[in-house]
Parts: sequence; structure tokens; C-alpha cells
Amino acid sequence: MSKRSSREKLVEFAGFFENFLNKNTSQAMAGRVVVYGGRGALGNACVQHFKKNNWWVLSIDMVANETADANVLVERDASWVDQESSVLSQVGSALSDSKVDAVICVAGGWAGGNAAKDLAKNSDLMWRQSVWTSAISAAVGANYLKPGGLLSLTGAKPALAATPGMMGYGMAKAAVHQLTKSLAGKDSGLPDNSLVVAILPVTLDTPMNRKWMPKADFSTWTPLEFVADLFLKWTKGEERPASGSLLQLITQDSVTKLVPAE
Amino acid sequence: MSKRSSREKLVEFAGFFENFLNKNTSQAMAGRVVVYGGRGALGNACVQHFKKNNWWVLSIDMVANETADANVLVERDASWVDQESSVLSQVGSALSDSKVDAVICVAGGWAGGNAAKDLAKNSDLMWRQSVWTSAISAAVGANYLKPGGLLSLTGAKPALAATPGMMGYGMAKAAVHQLTKSLAGKDSGLPDNSLVVAILPVTLDTPMNRKWMPKADFSTWTPLEFVADLFLKWTKGEERPASGSLLQLITQDSVTKLVPAE
Repeated sequence: MSKRSSREKLVEFAGFFENFLNKNTSQAMAGRVVVYGGRGALGNACVQHFKKNNWWVLSIDMVANETADANVLVERDASWVDQESSVLSQVGSALSDSKVDAVICVAGGWAGGNAAKDLAKNSDLMWRQSVWTSAISAAVGANYLKPGGLLSLTGAKPALAATPGMMGYGMAKAAVHQLTKSLAGKDSGLPDNSLVVAILPVTLDTPMNRKWMPKADFSTWTPLEFVADLFLKWTKGEERPASGSLLQLITQDSVTKLVPAE
Repeated sequence: MSKRSSREKLVEFAGFFENFLNKNTSQAMAGRVVVYGGRGALGNACVQHFKKNNWWVLSIDMVANETADANVLVERDASWVDQESSVLSQVGSALSDSKVDAVICVAGGWAGGNAAKDLAKNSDLMWRQSVWTSAISAAVGANYLKPGGLLSLTGAKPALAATPGMMGYGMAKAAVHQLTKSLAGKDSGLPDNSLVVAILPVTLDTPMNRKWMPKADFSTWTPLEFVADLFLKWTKGEERPASGSLLQLITQDSVTKLVPAE
């Protein structure tokens, strides 16, 4: 073993000390939340916003979010069942005996295509990105959510009707909508008084969307910070909608309104 | 090689002759239909009913239906994408250059369970049994249906609302409902003037259901022959509902009514 210099030891100590300060001397921790998809654009905005407001945040994604207090990594090529059991056991370890105030699933993706070409391929991808993540989030909720906690999933406004040009996407999001209603029903397996909702964005104001649609009217796009703050309020018990709601995020002139579907 | 007796040759010839009579001397063939799930209780009833009425029937299932004119076998453990491409190529070979008047998907299954246990496992099974088969049927329709043909999928009345006790089943059937609407939409990839519907049974009068629910009121169960005859009528252009309809099959006092959802 090489002998370490005093300078190296000092740098190491400074690191420990900074960490200690961050974790122990700021305000008391507000509570614990899980963000599924914590490395996506919206997921990262949620991780940042909860951290800024002094929450302990666990990110679940294929890659770690360094801002989060803990990370659970998902293997892309594992089966649905294996992803579920791996996530449940990793979340259990990260939490020890504590429970969480919210499980927020903002994982997802998009693919176009109709019945004429690659329907199975596109549908399979959409199912993995939206439905696997939503169902695993539901299982995390059933196991680790506090009574009265929040479980939020991510649907899509277009999937309330026909989506012939994005068939796999529409099916997956319709399944998420129906799952939201089931989870809000009696004996769903979630703790008592859980709040279950799905947000149904139209277009989120992400760097990727700005890149691909540079000439769009951004004043109709929903800011990520608005959505992150919604989750924070609901988690704190403020302005809660009815459980089972599918909440369309309608943004006009840079103002976003929540419009329950149906 | 062993030398065959005259008797063996005679028996073989008699078989060929019977086959020839069956295929060539009855009335002219009414047309061609595909039944996905042709070995299930409802699927087999459909195969029998179309055959009796002089249609050429192709059955798609994991096991052959010997009554059908042709069979396409699906490998249970193949991926969704591989099942789709294998089915499309086998259907193409079976049809040569002809097209079909109807693609009828009656494949499916049932599993209970909420979010607390085996959600991924149950949902995965339901997805394979109901959504893979429906989407592959849609792809078969896009490739091999005649203009004005019928594509019928199988949904479920309970999935129109929350299904907390059968969460995976509800999600899968909700996806089938949404797919039905998408397929009936503009530029869905189906031929012009296709009729796309989903039947939403409550309980079908199958031997298996009688076995498991022996004390139920059978006069509220829908007979398989009623459903098979519906498909026959729609295929022939009779009593067609609007494309995109989700048709609940409501049976009371042994009479079944079709009630469009919403």
C-alpha cells in the first residue's frame, strides 16, 4: 500500500465534514419521497425541488441522480417481474424501516406509429417505459408508502381519445389511466387514505422538446417547476385533488390549469 | 421401406377422396376469416360456426384447431416482436395472394390481484394474453384484411371502470379498448372502410365457467353461439355497429343485448 500524504488525508476529511454538515446541520428533514424516473427532465426537476425544500429523495432510474440522497438502479434488459422484485428489495434496503410520504412516477417515453408497421416493437417499448414503471411504482407504494401518502403516475391527455398515429403510446397511457382508477379503489393494496392521481401533460417545457420543436409556442408548454411544485404541495397535504383523478395540465399564456378528465 | 398392402393404399385413397369432396363439392366458399385464439372456448365456437356456414377459416393459437382450414402456431415464449413477425409471415404463406373478410381476436385470459402482491407477474401475463394478441391481430388486419373487412377485438365491461381486485386484467383490457378506438381512427394503417369493434363480455357461458361457478345464474351468461353468430353477421355486412364501438354484451333471461359503452 502506498503511504498517503497529509494533504490527501486533509482533503478526505474535508469531504467527510462537508457531507456531515449537509446531512445533519441544516433544517430537520421534511420527509421522504421516491421519484421513479429521477434522471429524466421532469424527474430531475422533482429531485431538485424536493431537495431544495429539505426532503430526503430516493431516485429510481437506469442511471443515478447525484443530487438524490439514495439511488435505486434498474436494469434495462431485466424482465418486468425481475425489475419489480429488484426495485422493491433495493428500496427496502435504502429506507431501512422508514416509510415514504410520496411515490412519484414520472418515467415515460414516446413513439409514433400505426398498425401498418412495427406495432409490436413500438408498443413493447411504450409498455416498458410507461406501464412497467407505473406498476412497479404502485408496488413500491403498496409496500413503502405511509398511510395518507401520495402516489402519482403520468398519463397523457391524447390517450383519453383515439391515437391512430401513436398506437402503442396511446395503449400504454390508457392502461396507466385505468391503473390510476384501480389504485384509488377499495382494497387496491395501498395504505389507507392514499392519494392516487395521474398527471396528464400535453407538452412539457423540456430542453429536448425545445430542441425538436424550436418554433412552437412555448407559452402553451407546461414548465417542469410548476409540476414539481404540484407534487410538493400534494405531498405536504395541500390542494389535494380527489383520489383517482386524471389531471390534465392545460397551459395557456404561460399559466397552467389542472382540468380533471371526464 | 416396408411394402404397403392394398388395403393401406385403399384407406389412404379414401381419405384423399373424402378431403376432396369436403373441399370442392360443397357450396362455393363464402369467404375467408382469421380467428386469433381459435383453440379457446369462444374461438373454437367461432371456427365451428364459420366452417358450418362454408367459410375458409385460419386459426391462430398455440395449438392447432383441426376443424380449421389452416393453422398458424404461436410460440408461447417468443417475444412480442418475434410473435408478430412469425404470425405475419405464416398468415401470408397460408393465404398466398388472397385477403380475408375478417380478423377476429378472441384470445385472452384472466388473473386477479391488487398492487400488494405479484402485480408485475399478473400484469405481464394479462398483457401477453390480451394485448399482444390484439396488437398482432391489428397488424394482421393492416396487412391482410380486405377493404371494408371486420377487425374484432375482445375487451371487458369491468375495465370501463376501476378494477382494484384484478389490476393487471383491467389495465390490459383498457389498453384493448383504447386500441379499438385508435384502429377506427384516421390513418390507422387498416384498409379503407374497415369495421373495428371490441366486444365487452360480462360472463361467457363456457364449460370452464360452469365448472368454477356451478351455482351462478346461467341465464345472465352469454352463449358462445350468440357471439359467433354476431361475428358472422358483421363479416357478411349485416347489422354492423359504428366503427370504434365498444359493445357490452348484456345477457338477461337468456337474451343478449349489445350496449355500446359511453
